Amino acid sequence: MKKKSRFLQTPIEPFAVEAGLTADQVLARMERISFQGRNLATAHRIWQKMLQDDVTIFLGMAGALSAGGLRLVVAHLIFNRYVDCLVSTGANLYHDLHETRGQRHYLGSPHADDAALAADRIDRVYDTYASEEEFISNDNWIAEFATTLELRPYTTREFLHLLGGHLWTTTGRDGILTAAYRANVPIFCPAIADSSIGMGLSQARQIKAGAGYIDIIGDIVESANLVIRRPRTASVVLGGGTPKNFINQASVQAEFYSDEVGGHRYALQIVTDVPHFGGASGSSLEEAQSWGKLAADSAKVSVQADATIALPLLASALATTAPPLLATRKIPVFTLAGRVMTVDGQTVPNARFEEMHEPAV
Amino acid sequence: MKKKSRFLQTPIEPFAVEAGLTADQVLARMERISFQGRNLATAHRIWQKMLQDDVTIFLGMAGALSAGGLRLVVAHLIFNRYVDCLVSTGANLYHDLHETRGQRHYLGSPHADDAALAADRIDRVYDTYASEEEFISNDNWIAEFATTLELRPYTTREFLHLLGGHLWTTTGRDGILTAAYRANVPIFCPAIADSSIGMGLSQARQIKAGAGYIDIIGDIVESANLVIRRPRTASVVLGGGTPKNFINQASVQAEFYSDEVGGHRYALQIVTDVPHFGGASGSSLEEAQSWGKLAADSAKVSVQADATIALPLLASALATTAPPLLATRKIPVFTLAGRVMTVDGQTVPNARFEEMHEPAV
Amino acid sequence: MKKKSRFLQTPIEPFAVEAGLTADQVLARMERISFQGRNLATAHRIWQKMLQDDVTIFLGMAGALSAGGLRLVVAHLIFNRYVDCLVSTGANLYHDLHETRGQRHYLGSPHADDAALAADRIDRVYDTYASEEEFISNDNWIAEFATTLELRPYTTREFLHLLGGHLWTTTGRDGILTAAYRANVPIFCPAIADSSIGMGLSQARQIKAGAGYIDIIGDIVESANLVIRRPRTASVVLGGGTPKNFINQASVQAEFYSDEVGGHRYALQIVTDVPHFGGASGSSLEEAQSWGKLAADSAKVSVQADATIALPLLASALATTAPPLLATRKIPVFTLAGRVMTVDGQTVPNARFEEMHEPAV
Amino acid sequence: MKKKSRFLQTPIEPFAVEAGLTADQVLARMERISFQGRNLATAHRIWQKMLQDDVTIFLGMAGALSAGGLRLVVAHLIFNRYVDCLVSTGANLYHDLHETRGQRHYLGSPHADDAALAADRIDRVYDTYASEEEFISNDNWIAEFATTLELRPYTTREFLHLLGGHLWTTTGRDGILTAAYRANVPIFCPAIADSSIGMGLSQARQIKAGAGYIDIIGDIVESANLVIRRPRTASVVLGGGTPKNFINQASVQAEFYSDEVGGHRYALQIVTDVPHFGGASGSSLEEAQSWGKLAADSAKVSVQADATIALPLLASALATTAPPLLATRKIPVFTLAGRVMTVDGQTVPNARFEEMHEPAV
Repeated sequence: MKKKSRFLQTPIEPFAVEAGLTADQVLARMERISFQGRNLATAHRIWQKMLQDDVTIFLGMAGALSAGGLRLVVAHLIFNRYVDCLVSTGANLYHDLHETRGQRHYLGSPHADDAALAADRIDRVYDTYASEEEFISNDNWIAEFATTLELRPYTTREFLHLLGGHLWTTTGRDGILTAAYRANVPIFCPAIADSSIGMGLSQARQIKAGAGYIDIIGDIVESANLVIRRPRTASVVLGGGTPKNFINQASVQAEFYSDEVGGHRYALQIVTDVPHFGGASGSSLEEAQSWGKLAADSAKVSVQADATIALPLLASALATTAPPLLATRKIPVFTLAGRVMTVDGQTVPNARFEEMHEPAV
Repeated sequence: MKKKSRFLQTPIEPFAVEAGLTADQVLARMERISFQGRNLATAHRIWQKMLQDDVTIFLGMAGALSAGGLRLVVAHLIFNRYVDCLVSTGANLYHDLHETRGQRHYLGSPHADDAALAADRIDRVYDTYASEEEFISNDNWIAEFATTLELRPYTTREFLHLLGGHLWTTTGRDGILTAAYRANVPIFCPAIADSSIGMGLSQARQIKAGAGYIDIIGDIVESANLVIRRPRTASVVLGGGTPKNFINQASVQAEFYSDEVGGHRYALQIVTDVPHFGGASGSSLEEAQSWGKLAADSAKVSVQADATIALPLLASALATTAPPLLATRKIPVFTLAGRVMTVDGQTVPNARFEEMHEPAV
Repeated sequence: MKKKSRFLQTPIEPFAVEAGLTADQVLARMERISFQGRNLATAHRIWQKMLQDDVTIFLGMAGALSAGGLRLVVAHLIFNRYVDCLVSTGANLYHDLHETRGQRHYLGSPHADDAALAADRIDRVYDTYASEEEFISNDNWIAEFATTLELRPYTTREFLHLLGGHLWTTTGRDGILTAAYRANVPIFCPAIADSSIGMGLSQARQIKAGAGYIDIIGDIVESANLVIRRPRTASVVLGGGTPKNFINQASVQAEFYSDEVGGHRYALQIVTDVPHFGGASGSSLEEAQSWGKLAADSAKVSVQADATIALPLLASALATTAPPLLATRKIPVFTLAGRVMTVDGQTVPNARFEEMHEPAV
Repeated sequence: MKKKSRFLQTPIEPFAVEAGLTADQVLARMERISFQGRNLATAHRIWQKMLQDDVTIFLGMAGALSAGGLRLVVAHLIFNRYVDCLVSTGANLYHDLHETRGQRHYLGSPHADDAALAADRIDRVYDTYASEEEFISNDNWIAEFATTLELRPYTTREFLHLLGGHLWTTTGRDGILTAAYRANVPIFCPAIADSSIGMGLSQARQIKAGAGYIDIIGDIVESANLVIRRPRTASVVLGGGTPKNFINQASVQAEFYSDEVGGHRYALQIVTDVPHFGGASGSSLEEAQSWGKLAADSAKVSVQADATIALPLLASALATTAPPLLATRKIPVFTLAGRVMTVDGQTVPNARFEEMHEPAV
């Protein structure tokens, strides 16, 4: 009998339908199917591996996920320390704050009459609505808060920790900002100027001259120093955008100053963009290896899917499979309230890079 | 206090993560989030509604779903009469036959060396491999079977029922063709000439002159007559392609000959193509209304997702929620073994359209 | 000085804007940019190479290109023998016939009120409208024509040639079907049952029993025999779908019966689908190599773009650059009016494959 | 005779192929075809209209367009004042600087061996390569320049104008930064922290304590004040991302402080993202109306295409059609060298918003 080709090793195992399957069982049965279903099952497995390794896990978040109903999923991942550091667009933090302040987004239609919406001052995000008036109230709330700060530049990490604290004190409600505050998880927002949080900050200047200064370059230094302090990292990206790039940049920048840094050990991304137009959001994890953003032997997977489908399934599965791993996980311990953050008792400066041309911690 | 806008009715309810959620519970929590997650949850609800109504449910299937590990999901939907009639590409039926005959597809990589695969005679479908030799054995098997038939044209519906029967007799294994055979569910394959099943049929002519004739135009007549006999219909489409259009065409064609026909009452599609390039696969269900393919008041939803993610979740949820509905469902009863099929005891001819300008059944 | 990496050979040459550039000059300046722009420029070059080689050039056409205003581009490519054989969806041929018969498609809006359109019996294809009544008149015209044929199965190739002839005689107008008729270029339509041409054929049975029989399996044999007769082939694909696969299938099927066949020597595709969902429309040309659909050393390029942007630019460029190549091109000469077509004086049977295990023509 | 439906007004005019057509002639013939081809032709017409109106034209630029060979197209649009203000990602400005400094990007392959590239320290952007060493040299160059500035926060607008000036003085070469410098066109870069320009700035702190401070919130104030000063605006967006949102945000923010502002009067975007996943990059221009980002009666078009195909064709056409319009165009006149910019002789502060609840200029 003819020998089988070396390429034919593991057969596809058709998905078997059964009543009562839990999310993790569904994903387990998707491991040996094909295409993006397989990739999503692989993402589940890779995330479990991350949790068993001693790595700092970055979570990147772009797209209208907070408005779209995933903010408590992200809050859950943060609070239970599936992740150690969030990098987000401003909009996601803003829409989170909107709901944590007790306001809502609403079910809408993508076929709405936008002129009628505009007349009613309703803002549409595809099939989701929000009230412009409530948004203005948020802007004012942020502006007011910003005027209570010192008249000096704040990194987004420091500012967002304080904002989360103020939000927690004021509302006592669960959300991304409040979960990160309570769990001492740092948040970076590299494109804060391109969001309503930035708009709120800009309006602070109207109230108090010299208010609303953000040291965005300090965020670069700080995020790279975090990688220098803890050179083993992992990256989970939802939707590309500036968070995806900023997480990779932290690693690349850290590598300039420390021989210990060698790219993310694990990488998973859930994206809808594609590689062939050359944009960073859709860029492949293979391409990331050429840049040294990923270790050559990293475990990695791209899932081409809308996060509003993939994340509820993935997070529900992890809620079942991850708790034992979370219980024994070695997590980095942060202090975030000050101008200079610390990790595991060591400072993470934002004024200059730590140069580490000897073994790191 | 100011009155709330009429547009702000139902708040988004953020997805709440919890351990042990079953597939249907996950989907239930996705009903009030946004974007494609909400659409998938809506698809679950619409399918349940279809099962409670007295409609003939068509299932269209394009894309490499059989090779990709979803053939037993489709077999399950057919065997348990979630659907009443399958319209498929030839490839999906062929890859189903391949596995039902005891052969496998294999896990592969999208980054494979295709020249090396070609040298080993391995055919690649994105991240999935199959043996060309085994494919040739299928072609021969189909060709041999075709030579046992009468020397006359067969509709794909008749041919595929007989093929399913032969496959069931030979293998006793579960699959799409065998499930459809056993459950007396008709299968149409309008583009059979564009598939390896067609190739097998063409090779029958090499063995026996005059073998391998398919009456593809008869399929049009038959599918339209089926709608004329049972004018209330529903459409479930996975992946677009010729099946999507053929299901709509059956309705449009039937409308020429019967006043009772008024477009599908329910429509759900899981597609990755988009509307804005004008192709039929990605065309919107709104557009379908202009053609009369859909009733004006139909319940409908498009889910923009890879079926390998959406279908395992959706079918797992239905396996829990649908059984009571299936138990009381009024299903059309077919006889399929003959040249002329019947539904509910009435003939469904393929030689001419039934003209029904009075109330239908 | 350090040696430059072997990977850094040819610099990107930024596109230089200039007034009065012709289409071919625009494409020439796109050859050394990146992403899909470079790919489109490469497509221009590869098509020129095809024209200089002794290959049979297949053109595949899917998506609503005829309704969308590209039918005279395709007619031009056929009539001037940029291509030798067309494989099309039925819809493209039908919409071509619609306009050749003197009717029109109309500018519309993707945001139309589809209920209002339905009330006016206007069918919408994204941003394009057509009159349902005129469509019904086409169906009747096709049905009438079909009743004039012999009561025997016709391959789509034979039927479409006769249809084109009838259309030319009746209208004297330019279009795809009439250009193919006049230039003796064969047309295959593997999914004819999934189109209004098929619907017209099915309605012929209402007028005359036994009319409207299509031998779709004969098309498989015939197209493969064409490749067996002329084993050097090239493939140009617009939009994927059944035409893309049928062209590849002809090559794969031919290879079973002739040692001379080794996959297309040139392949270019303009598609909007992507590879990562596993569907055939978006499948990569690399993947096609694993199947032997493409020669290992083939010149190939995929352009990810809407054909309504890419084709006008590409065809306009070729209209300037190709004429000298067309003038000296060796074209296959067909006779198409009979039940058995010929190429270069040799028969191309549809009743059985030509087995050629010695050198072909 | 029956009256024609009101929906059937303007027939599709099939594209007629002809040798020697110039880019603008190609686009003119695409005006009455369908799908994205029609949209690109409409974009050409809308841009011409913008040039004839008294509006401030914003250009947004995301995606790897500079590396991908379009930087001189953008430089051309800036220098000839097709646009008045650029909003860009940092990467595009960085890759522009890279080439203006005499270095190159290189033709590469999307199927490259990324481990081999990493070993050679070559960074890949899909099908384009660059040398990491040269990138490090840029970072140092930027860092050195940043240390020559005052120890105070700079808006990106001020910083990038000075950087462009330094680049022009040093190299005398054409590019985006140098063209903007020479033409006195402001550049905003809201996500500068997420780019190698940000990395260069961060490294300045290693050389000189207190260097590299950017006042990103000042950019918000300044861009909104620009709209307050000149409330009639237009938006041209290439590829979405932060630039798209920042341009819209400037308008929304300005509206808080001035009754004269009413959304962009013209909007065209060339994007590859889609609306149905809810992300801002792919969001529709209809949706933008609900937010007041666009005037209700604005002229607008979205082109779903890769900019590397669409922009060379569009810019080549404009190079022929626009010069007479440019000659008579009323352009805003900026001074950009100082901490506070001016437009048409009026200051555009970044420390507080101009409140204008009476008619603006």
